Order: sequence, then structure tokens, then C-alpha cells
Amino acid sequence: MMSKKIPFYQADAPVVILVRPQMAENIGMVARAMMNCTLSELRLVRPRESQLCDKAVAASSGAQTILENAKVYDTLDEALADVRFALATTARPRDMTKPVYHPEAAMKLCQEHLGRGEKVAILFGAERTGLENEELIPADGIIEIPLNPKHCSLNLSQAVLLIGYSWFRLTRDWDNTHLATGGSMPATKQELNAFLEHLENELDERGYFYLPAKRERMQRNLRNIFTRAGLTGAEIKTLHGVVIDLTRPISQK
Amino acid sequence: MMSKKIPFYQADAPVVILVRPQMAENIGMVARAMMNCTLSELRLVRPRESQLCDKAVAASSGAQTILENAKVYDTLDEALADVRFALATTARPRDMTKPVYHPEAAMKLCQEHLGRGEKVAILFGAERTGLENEELIPADGIIEIPLNPKHCSLNLSQAVLLIGYSWFRLTRDWDNTHLATGGSMPATKQELNAFLEHLENELDERGYFYLPAKRERMQRNLRNIFTRAGLTGAEIKTLHGVVIDLTRPISQK
Repeated sequence: MMSKKIPFYQADAPVVILVRPQMAENIGMVARAMMNCTLSELRLVRPRESQLCDKAVAASSGAQTILENAKVYDTLDEALADVRFALATTARPRDMTKPVYHPEAAMKLCQEHLGRGEKVAILFGAERTGLENEELIPADGIIEIPLNPKHCSLNLSQAVLLIGYSWFRLTRDWDNTHLATGGSMPATKQELNAFLEHLENELDERGYFYLPAKRERMQRNLRNIFTRAGLTGAEIKTLHGVVIDLTRPISQK
Repeated sequence: MMSKKIPFYQADAPVVILVRPQMAENIGMVARAMMNCTLSELRLVRPRESQLCDKAVAASSGAQTILENAKVYDTLDEALADVRFALATTARPRDMTKPVYHPEAAMKLCQEHLGRGEKVAILFGAERTGLENEELIPADGIIEIPLNPKHCSLNLSQAVLLIGYSWFRLTRDWDNTHLATGGSMPATKQELNAFLEHLENELDERGYFYLPAKRERMQRNLRNIFTRAGLTGAEIKTLHGVVIDLTRPISQK
């Protein structure tokens, strides 16, 4: 599982730069997606609507601090002034020579540059038009989000979310699987075997294993079923109770 | 880069099941996110609004066929009737014993089950409440999307997008980096060297390398700069022109 020590946001993370965003709601949703992924620094180049208007704040769904701390610039060059490494997102291949990275590789590269103390930024274009060719020029590379080529249009905040998720995914260590046991440990083999013997004894007394030639196989099948279930100690206790009650005549109830 | 042969959608992909979705717009955005990721089969359990209403179709942004082919069910059990392996998405750990997977591991597991010819489904809960405990019971496991634990609430369509992206990412082979050259091949070393000699000769004639002791180092620095730029043949031609023009006296223009 994730470490519990994840901070509210990361200081050494890429800056998100939105170039000419059109809709306040999208700016808000970008802030929300950023906070989902522990990104915190937002810069806006000539936004049509303010990042602090009601629509933006409502759409940010609790990520208002990112909007409050966002800086607004007149030009992309100004927004990039202190940035040493910038990647631009675009779905469309352009007629220019730039290295193109998928999000995972792009975020690894950003991490390397951040590790050398560089300011790193990721550029996102306007909702409909994306980044213009001249806006791609200052970028050191392109991030292409691989999606269905017949339907690859993404909402601005969804593009930020996918990039942010790749970032978060890269910067966190976690096990890929863990068993949620509600606090209960997995049963010991001894506990499991005690239950299986309980079950088999009750079945045996009722003639379940009446064909000696098949006994071993039937037993193995049963044991496989309950072994595969990955039972906890608490569940073993539940099953003991089930067998006890099943073997009780109805009249006694 | 991605193969060009990606179909409109994949037949052998997980089914997306939305349990009690509240907003038609969200159903539409889910369809859009599904099509982004080549998922195609959508099932709805007791949606409050129709997946075919105007709001849903508008929000689907071209993914209308997914809405048209979506099936509606009264109960989750009916929606799961032909499903052999199901995973449920939830941000919150529950008091129950289920394996929990992050999206990448979950999609690998889905792929294994699909490979054995099984119908596979991924369950998403209602917008506000998520999946109820009883709705988690039929699931063979839980998908937990790792995000900032202090701000992990996702829009329904964003959850579908992140899971779908993990699916798409898993089922596609691509190189992580490629150079977009606008059709032009990277220059040969011979072309590069011819340019460097052109440049050095012009500089030499003007006394740039006036300190013999530093000549080698200055030359090496220059060569490193232009080698690192990863120039194409077309760009080499451009640079030859630049040197030619730079060395032309202004009066001749």
C-alpha cells in the first residue's frame, strides 16, 4: 500500500502551465486533477476567464488553494522564464523535430531534471485548438498520450489527470496487490486444516466418502476449494459454525 | 509508436458496469472515456437518467454508439449474470476480505481471464456514494486507484478513464520515445561533419581559433553542441545556409 506520509503536495514536482484556457470550469477541474496527483503549481497564460471565479472554484472541488496560488502571465515566454526543462502535450504529431515521449517516459525525464534542481513545466494548450506550433518551440520535447487514434480527444482536465497520474504513479512506491483483510490475519495452515478435518469428519460420518476409491480425490477437491479461498482466521471460525449448524437436526432448533 | 491497426474497439475487453449512476452527463463522459481507451461494452444498473437523453449524448462527444449499445439492468446480479470475473472500483478500504489491486495489476489480471475466454467486468459505483458493501460482494477483487489520500475524489468518468488508460496501456506495445522528424531522416554523421567543417573553416579564416592551445577544446565544444542537437538532414542544410549568409558582408545584400 501507499506510504501514509504523502504530503499535501510535492515541492519538487512539475509546474502545470495552461496556455490560453477558455473555460473557468476547466481550470477548476485541472486544479482538482492536480491535487489528486499531488501537483500544486499552476500557471496560466492569458486565460479567458479568471481562475478565481465561482465556476472555477466550484469545479475545483476542494482544490481552491491551487487556484489561489496560480500565477497569470501575458506570454508563454514569461511563464517559462525560470523553467529549465519543458514538455508540451499534444495529441497530434507536428511537422517539427522534437523527441516525443509517452507519459511514463516523460515523467521519468521530468524527475531526472527535477533531481538536478531544475524547474520543470508541462504545457497544455487551449481546449479546442491545443498548442500552436510556435508554442511548441520552447518545449524540449512532446508528450503524446497514447489513446484510441480514432477517438483521442480528451477534455483538458482529463489530459492533466493522465499526465498527473503518471507522475504520481512514478513517484510512489507501492505493492501492486495487497489483501484487505479488515484487520484479520490470513488463517494459519493449522487453522485451515482443523476446519477441513472438522468438515471431513462430519461428512464421513454421513457417508459422503462412500466410495473408497474416490475418497482421496474427493478430499483433495474439497481441500483445494477452501485453500484457494484464502480464508482469514475469522472466516475459519465462521465456517466451523456453519458446519456445526448444518449438522444439527432441524428439530433441535 | 502505436500500431496503426488499432480497431475501433476491442471485443475481448472488460465490460464497464455503472451501478446506479445519477447524472446523464456522467454516463456520456464515461462513454467518451471508454472510447478513448477502446473499451466498448457498457452496462447500466438502474440509471436515474437515460443514457440516450440529449445530455448524455452531447457529453459522449462522439461516443454515441457506446450509449446506443449499452444495456440497462434492474439489478447488479442481472448485469453480472454472464460475467465470470469482476473487479470493483473503490477509493475506500472496506471491512471485507478481498484482494486489492492497483489499476495496472488489475488490468493484467483481467487480461489473463479474458485470455481464457471469460467475460470480465469492472464495476463503478454511484457518483457520491460509490459502491455499497453489498455491491462489492460479487466482486472477485477491488481496484484501488492510487491518488493523493488527502484529495482522492474522482469524477466517475475520470475513474473510468484512469482504469481504461491502464487497460489501453497494457494492451498496446509502443516505444516509449520516438523522434518526430516531420518525415526527415536524422542526418548522417558525414552530413554533420561536412557542416562542422564548413563552420570551422569559416571561423578559422576569421581567427576564431587564435589560441593554438585552446583550438582542440573549442572545436570539441562546438561539435558537442551540434551533435547533441540531433539534427536532421534538412536542418543541416538550413545551418549551411545560415553560415553562408552570416559570412557574407552586409554590403553585398
